[in-house]
Amino acid sequence: MKWCRVSVEDRAVFGILEGDEVVPVEGSPFGTSRPTPGRYSLSGVKILVPVLPANFYAVGVNYRAHVEWARMHHGLAVEIPGQPDIGYRSVNALIPTGAPIIIPGDSPGPVEYEGELVAVVGRTARHLSEGEALSCLLGYTLGNDVSERAWQRSDRTLWRAKNTDTFKPMGPVIATDLDPMTQHIVVRINGKIVNEYETGSMLFTLQQYISRMTRYLTLYPGDVIWLGTDGATEPALTPGDVVEIEDEAIGVLRNPVVRER
Amino acid sequence: MKWCRVSVEDRAVFGILEGDEVVPVEGSPFGTSRPTPGRYSLSGVKILVPVLPANFYAVGVNYRAHVEWARMHHGLAVEIPGQPDIGYRSVNALIPTGAPIIIPGDSPGPVEYEGELVAVVGRTARHLSEGEALSCLLGYTLGNDVSERAWQRSDRTLWRAKNTDTFKPMGPVIATDLDPMTQHIVVRINGKIVNEYETGSMLFTLQQYISRMTRYLTLYPGDVIWLGTDGATEPALTPGDVVEIEDEAIGVLRNPVVRER
Repeated sequence: MKWCRVSVEDRAVFGILEGDEVVPVEGSPFGTSRPTPGRYSLSGVKILVPVLPANFYAVGVNYRAHVEWARMHHGLAVEIPGQPDIGYRSVNALIPTGAPIIIPGDSPGPVEYEGELVAVVGRTARHLSEGEALSCLLGYTLGNDVSERAWQRSDRTLWRAKNTDTFKPMGPVIATDLDPMTQHIVVRINGKIVNEYETGSMLFTLQQYISRMTRYLTLYPGDVIWLGTDGATEPALTPGDVVEIEDEAIGVLRNPVVRER
Repeated sequence: MKWCRVSVEDRAVFGILEGDEVVPVEGSPFGTSRPTPGRYSLSGVKILVPVLPANFYAVGVNYRAHVEWARMHHGLAVEIPGQPDIGYRSVNALIPTGAPIIIPGDSPGPVEYEGELVAVVGRTARHLSEGEALSCLLGYTLGNDVSERAWQRSDRTLWRAKNTDTFKPMGPVIATDLDPMTQHIVVRINGKIVNEYETGSMLFTLQQYISRMTRYLTLYPGDVIWLGTDGATEPALTPGDVVEIEDEAIGVLRNPVVRER
């Protein structure tokens, strides 16, 4: 099943994607919902970010090859983490599929993609064991953790490097019923594959993250956990590019790149 | 004027505090609002966190004496920042005045307070000059940036040290019409003053933060910016303590401390 969020008559509503059609619902996937009359062609509605999370978690570094690459190519002080410590992003930067990634006028660059699987929490959860961990999830979507590497080195925090407006494309839909540890993530720039990896290579599993997180904090419906990327994230994004993150079960998150005037 | 958020007949509503009475409103301070019939005694309603922000910013280190103290007493790798780089917290950890700060059972400690002035955004803002910066604000509240110092040293990120559930008391109200650079913040444990400082000692002003932040991101109504603390944050919080953050114009944020069973 695929959940989406769309703009219908200037109102944001959740919907169920059936083939190329959207069936809007009353309510939400995080509570009760029921289909409303009418169907819309997917091409005729505006797709929104599939959920606006109250808490926006990101694991940051969770794949060995990406850590090694970041150290070698960007001189970033990234270590292989010894335990699953989560980080944060913020919703100001979220954009849906189709919306432009806007590189600030004063960005020295490079600005790079990071194609990620994203877990979406479906119910309130605390103190989950690894065995129970995935039971709190509604499903999965895709994220592009766009990163300004010069600011990632120069700034005390990641706010500008990772959380400039438009730097967090997320979508297109939330797919239920998939195994987060057996996904194949593909990144394309202008139709050409530039990165692909298996989520099974994670240093810490999603189950380990959720179990450890819920020992100290409550997960809420709609919260998202971005699961990191593997390997290199080159070439850099340049104005005019179209960057796509794809997973067979979820679909394609596609965003053009522009430069701020 | 003092805005609050209270639970009335199990519904969260905004209200205006007049003396010891709350006048509930329809709407919110972030849009239009009008008073509703009825007044409630402040002692007869449950005070909630004054706003649930979409984006929860925290400057982290913004006072010289606190940086020097953190280095000396905790061996934290804190430097005097060279530019105003903002950090993040997350809403899972927010609690209102009166609610207990719960120290996790496995916390090695010390767990310490950090009494802070908090700016609350009132309207959508982008590209503000320092001169215009404060015009986007609704007002100010208080925050206690409770911090587990062992985890602050050991973990890759601050998630557990700073954002464990209940570690972010905020309130009691949002006061409009005060000068953020001339406030006197007082922290008490069990009625005894343990820390006090002037917000005028900030390394970077709130105006500098807002101007720089809005060059890269959009501020939204309800977003909060926690402005950091000065000086020492000792003695550590222990179960049975009551910790208070006070500002004359805003009031008292008061929370008891308990240990997780």
